Amino acid sequence: MTEPIEQAHAEHLAATLKALADPARLRLLSLVASSADQEACVCDLIEPVGLSQPTVSHHLKVLTEAGFLSRSKRGTWAYYRLRPEALTGVADFLTV
Amino acid sequence: MTEPIEQAHAEHLAATLKALADPARLRLLSLVASSADQEACVCDLIEPVGLSQPTVSHHLKVLTEAGFLSRSKRGTWAYYRLRPEALTGVADFLTV
Repeated sequence: MTEPIEQAHAEHLAATLKALADPARLRLLSLVASSADQEACVCDLIEPVGLSQPTVSHHLKVLTEAGFLSRSKRGTWAYYRLRPEALTGVADFLTV
Repeated sequence: MTEPIEQAHAEHLAATLKALADPARLRLLSLVASSADQEACVCDLIEPVGLSQPTVSHHLKVLTEAGFLSRSKRGTWAYYRLRPEALTGVADFLTV
């Protein structure tokens, strides 16, 4: 953040930060990030956060749309994998 | 983010990220961060963001309350200085 950012960049970054700015989503992201291979089945995320499956799936969708997770379907369940470069992109902006 | 975060930590971090997740506030923060000594008079921030003084002051208050800026009054104007350690705290969490 060594120079002023433009409106378009600010709008994109604000939308990305908004996707992160939720306690349940931060917990889900940290659960995926700390899983083996930084990947987790939605079925293993429900109990630790103590929310219903539809709510967990909604939060995972928001994180996926913001670029923090990628989703793949294997059998009955959806698996989510961390996209660390998305986090790095935000962290780099915040480094002064 | 190498281990799951607890609910209380997640709530605090979400509130901090919410303060950042606004285009005008990101632009104001980047303007302060790129000023000499990472400090700026509110009077110099109004024109670059193209918002009214009350609106700019409101956004600066939110950023100050979230810990990203410190405020001091000198004469007629308020001056805002970056607290880089607050940004580092968020960036560190996002580093995986």
